[in-house]
Amino acid sequence: MAAPEQIRHFSLPQLEELAHEVREFIIDSVSETGGHFASNLGTVELTVALFNQFDFRRDRIVWDVGHQAYSHKILTGRKGRFGTLRQHHGLSGFLKREESPVYDHFGAGHASTSISAILGMAKARDLQGEDHTCVAVIGDGSMTAGMAFEALNQAGYLKTRKFLVILNDNDMSINPNVGSLQGYLNQLISGQYYHRWRDRIEHAIKAFPIAGLARRMAKVAKWTEESMKRLMVPGLLFEDLGLAYMGPVNGHDVGATLKALREAKQLLAEGPVLLHVQTKKGYGYEPAANDPLKWHGVTAFDAEAGEIRKAAPAPPAYTKVFADALIELAGRDEKIVAITAAMLDGTGLNHFQKAFPERCFDVGIAEQHAVTFAAGLAAQGMRPVCAIYSTFLQRGFDQVLHDVCLQDLPVTFALDRAGIVGADGPTHHGLYDLAYLRCMPNMILMAPKDENELRQMLVTALYSDRPAALRYPRGNALGQPREGSLVALPIGKGELLREGHDLLFVALGTMVGPAQALADRLAEDGCTCAVINARFVKPLDETLILEWSRRVRGVVTLEEGCAPGGFSAAVLEALADGGRSMPVLRLAVPDHVVQHGDPRRLLEEEGLGPKEAETRVRSFLSRL
Amino acid sequence: MAAPEQIRHFSLPQLEELAHEVREFIIDSVSETGGHFASNLGTVELTVALFNQFDFRRDRIVWDVGHQAYSHKILTGRKGRFGTLRQHHGLSGFLKREESPVYDHFGAGHASTSISAILGMAKARDLQGEDHTCVAVIGDGSMTAGMAFEALNQAGYLKTRKFLVILNDNDMSINPNVGSLQGYLNQLISGQYYHRWRDRIEHAIKAFPIAGLARRMAKVAKWTEESMKRLMVPGLLFEDLGLAYMGPVNGHDVGATLKALREAKQLLAEGPVLLHVQTKKGYGYEPAANDPLKWHGVTAFDAEAGEIRKAAPAPPAYTKVFADALIELAGRDEKIVAITAAMLDGTGLNHFQKAFPERCFDVGIAEQHAVTFAAGLAAQGMRPVCAIYSTFLQRGFDQVLHDVCLQDLPVTFALDRAGIVGADGPTHHGLYDLAYLRCMPNMILMAPKDENELRQMLVTALYSDRPAALRYPRGNALGQPREGSLVALPIGKGELLREGHDLLFVALGTMVGPAQALADRLAEDGCTCAVINARFVKPLDETLILEWSRRVRGVVTLEEGCAPGGFSAAVLEALADGGRSMPVLRLAVPDHVVQHGDPRRLLEEEGLGPKEAETRVRSFLSRL
Repeated sequence: MAAPEQIRHFSLPQLEELAHEVREFIIDSVSETGGHFASNLGTVELTVALFNQFDFRRDRIVWDVGHQAYSHKILTGRKGRFGTLRQHHGLSGFLKREESPVYDHFGAGHASTSISAILGMAKARDLQGEDHTCVAVIGDGSMTAGMAFEALNQAGYLKTRKFLVILNDNDMSINPNVGSLQGYLNQLISGQYYHRWRDRIEHAIKAFPIAGLARRMAKVAKWTEESMKRLMVPGLLFEDLGLAYMGPVNGHDVGATLKALREAKQLLAEGPVLLHVQTKKGYGYEPAANDPLKWHGVTAFDAEAGEIRKAAPAPPAYTKVFADALIELAGRDEKIVAITAAMLDGTGLNHFQKAFPERCFDVGIAEQHAVTFAAGLAAQGMRPVCAIYSTFLQRGFDQVLHDVCLQDLPVTFALDRAGIVGADGPTHHGLYDLAYLRCMPNMILMAPKDENELRQMLVTALYSDRPAALRYPRGNALGQPREGSLVALPIGKGELLREGHDLLFVALGTMVGPAQALADRLAEDGCTCAVINARFVKPLDETLILEWSRRVRGVVTLEEGCAPGGFSAAVLEALADGGRSMPVLRLAVPDHVVQHGDPRRLLEEEGLGPKEAETRVRSFLSRL
Repeated sequence: MAAPEQIRHFSLPQLEELAHEVREFIIDSVSETGGHFASNLGTVELTVALFNQFDFRRDRIVWDVGHQAYSHKILTGRKGRFGTLRQHHGLSGFLKREESPVYDHFGAGHASTSISAILGMAKARDLQGEDHTCVAVIGDGSMTAGMAFEALNQAGYLKTRKFLVILNDNDMSINPNVGSLQGYLNQLISGQYYHRWRDRIEHAIKAFPIAGLARRMAKVAKWTEESMKRLMVPGLLFEDLGLAYMGPVNGHDVGATLKALREAKQLLAEGPVLLHVQTKKGYGYEPAANDPLKWHGVTAFDAEAGEIRKAAPAPPAYTKVFADALIELAGRDEKIVAITAAMLDGTGLNHFQKAFPERCFDVGIAEQHAVTFAAGLAAQGMRPVCAIYSTFLQRGFDQVLHDVCLQDLPVTFALDRAGIVGADGPTHHGLYDLAYLRCMPNMILMAPKDENELRQMLVTALYSDRPAALRYPRGNALGQPREGSLVALPIGKGELLREGHDLLFVALGTMVGPAQALADRLAEDGCTCAVINARFVKPLDETLILEWSRRVRGVVTLEEGCAPGGFSAAVLEALADGGRSMPVLRLAVPDHVVQHGDPRRLLEEEGLGPKEAETRVRSFLSRL
């Protein structure tokens, strides 16, 4: 494939050919490896056009989220490694500064950071007396997050030159995009914006104070639709924020996109520009274009047949268990409402939405608003459930603390994808929730050991009349037979799973099973271990832990979360405050960035796999 | 003063008289107690008008931030307690649900939450089949935060009825407001918006395809300025987001405001409305109107003379020490830039801005953007310093983690107002930073024991080439004589301040001095205490702590931060990981909401005052 600097000199037919090659390569490659798919098919021509018009050894580009940037990776020397995509020690599914120090200027797995980052780069450029162009590519979904607006508000204000925001409008988040901004963008694309304006102007003309003139004006105004268009300025919302608006442009037409980029370059000399590019998720591969939601992120598939390979039969995912339980509960209690931030399918709320359309709110990629919106609902007596991935709730940290916890409002947070998530890597691991939620006053914080406990914890949270969070992992549950009805757990009570006199295992969530297995193995050598399923990180069952700590020689904590400040710290605090001084081994994810890859291998690498855990525990035992 | 339900029946002159009374009362009362002042003088007439037009026993109102809501408090039965404002066990400076269960529908100390909260309330209302009106009052400063945009984006999309956003436009945050949105609002107020449109339309007419008609249109169009205005729709930015726009209205003219509210009620039947009200901070009290920044928050003042009482001479505030050091460093290194989120004066960056206007960025109330903007600057080789209060950086939690720490970018965070802040209370205490920053990989986290150490820590952070944060308290520094030049500290090294063989005090920041004093007092009884100034919460000086822990019978940790997951947890983790089992007493702020009032009394109440700490340590000693 051509080197980036060669693409600068390509003719239009060459560029079109290159786009074709890149698309075919993405289809072939992702059909083998799996990965983000529909979004990457949507940006092929745009990427090729950008590499023709800019030199990204000098010019800067930030791709929002980065799951639309496979073409960027392919064009910048990483084609040969695509077979390793999202695998352990393989290519990242997102952009990553260390993966390509020359071309990956800023990494991201969370949405809506690109305009802020590129604005910082543009100001650095200005201060350093350089003159290259700074480009952000951001989807319409990402534009619903407030931080994109914050960045536009400053970019327009600073009148930053050579600052180009490309709005990649495919009318989608992962789910169809929501919010009035999307309605506005659709009006720009459909031409409705003009019609709305014509109505307004006609109305104004009718109210014109001098009747004769009004009639004449009306005639003139109606003369042609074309002339009306000239009276109006599309993209005024962006112009009002200080950016020149261009578009919409068909982002799959390389020639049109090139032309728009050339024109944008002229305008960029004067100030910031927003170029509205219309693309289609899944473009060029019919099954994905017809169902971009299904083809957003895929496992390996049969490219010819257009069929995603079926996974082997498995227990239902935790996501599904959560959604089913919530639907069951909502059937009995009409105060229950559910909120998602652009993750209807990912959180399982698509099922809830079908059952209770009026009680389900997709607020767009807007976790901050999601949380405080829920707080408002709770303040008026509803029982809101915010279903947000562990990693994405980081965006709502202040709102959980300031709006929910300080006011002690009964909002339930259902944190999916807690712990190590696997292929999505560092930006998506849900490793910090235990630490960042545990410091908040009034919060109840839980993690289930299996699907039945998840169901119980959801009831517990909903009827605690307090802020409460439950965190559960990505992937399939354990396949436990369903236990009877939905009953709340006693708040702050752990579960003693087995007695023992050598060690006490205090385990949380996904690590409860491994703790029991480990106790089994140690029992073979005559070492007995008590095992507590903590259930509650907060309030922690200090009584139970202290009681059993007195019967053993050492304590082992087990959690799938970051080592600083998380569950292990809670246990250490309880022991210290309870006056117990004893050896404690902490099995948690070490304090560094955890990479992407197969979750099992990552767990092993972090010292939490069955063998590693056993080795560490035996070593700990030997020192007691 | 009239009861809220009486105000519903007042005539215009009665309402004007009431507004006059309320303003005089605020001036008298705040001149005695101190408090937020200029913002509260700006909303008197608006509040009176709102209480006339709505019944807030049924209708809901959320005041953004709540430091503009003194009139609301005065009108809802709290006038008699105003002498206790912001004092220990006295009235809160903000709205608070428990303070007035009937009238304080949602509390807030952080900006920009009101639209989200009131939208949640409006949806609760709809689901509950009720029909009252929901009102948010939000300042133009608060509108710069992304979450306000997120909420508007959903409100417009849902077409929520009886949903009124009052934009209280005073052209200010605490500092003058920034961002292109403010420019837009100013155009609406000044009429410039029309002029800009006239130019556009004239331009369009000139390009009209049929020359004769174009000339006629031009004539018509120029006929009167007034007629032009009718052709245009102001507030289109909000209309594009799906809210009907009304205004601007003079918010100090009770009659005009009533009229606007009545008209708004008509429109509210159809969907959400944004009413643009123009007010002036400090209105009705000339010194404050002339200098609203100085009079934003005040201590007691002489109301007649218009003079704020001078504080007794005191050492410079930590804020000033930080700003001076930063200016000194920036004088030597042109890569240093500074970023504030609408807190130029509060963070001391107003001084920096004077010295280096090109290198100082006030991004508005937009902490998320501030952080990622800094990350962009850092990615391009600059040395950005984000100066943000501890409590407000909560808004940027995900950005610090996802954009800065995961990418290991050298951004320095200067966290002012860490620890207990006093009169502002629960929403403003900086108690959580140690816990929420400590869980982030790559982060360096420090707290200085005095002003000299603050200066050293700033250098350390700036030249660590890593994400680094230093947190320091509100108020005056210790008055230490300045020590020589700005030199970096060895990263991860604590400072042994005294040796001892009974206890080891491991103290952080503001608690280092008290730890030494306590050691002095215990020494009188023959009990010797080693004292370590930890300096670094992360990386913690585990070697030093372990070494000295082996020479004593017990460890005491001391910090002005939340007990779960903070500094004490770091020490417990270090001891456990280092194989040390020994008694540890944690002196930290307990895990509950800390109220407002005099910081010294609050510290005592939380068990951290000198006497309380001594009692607890002696009791701990007696159990060893």
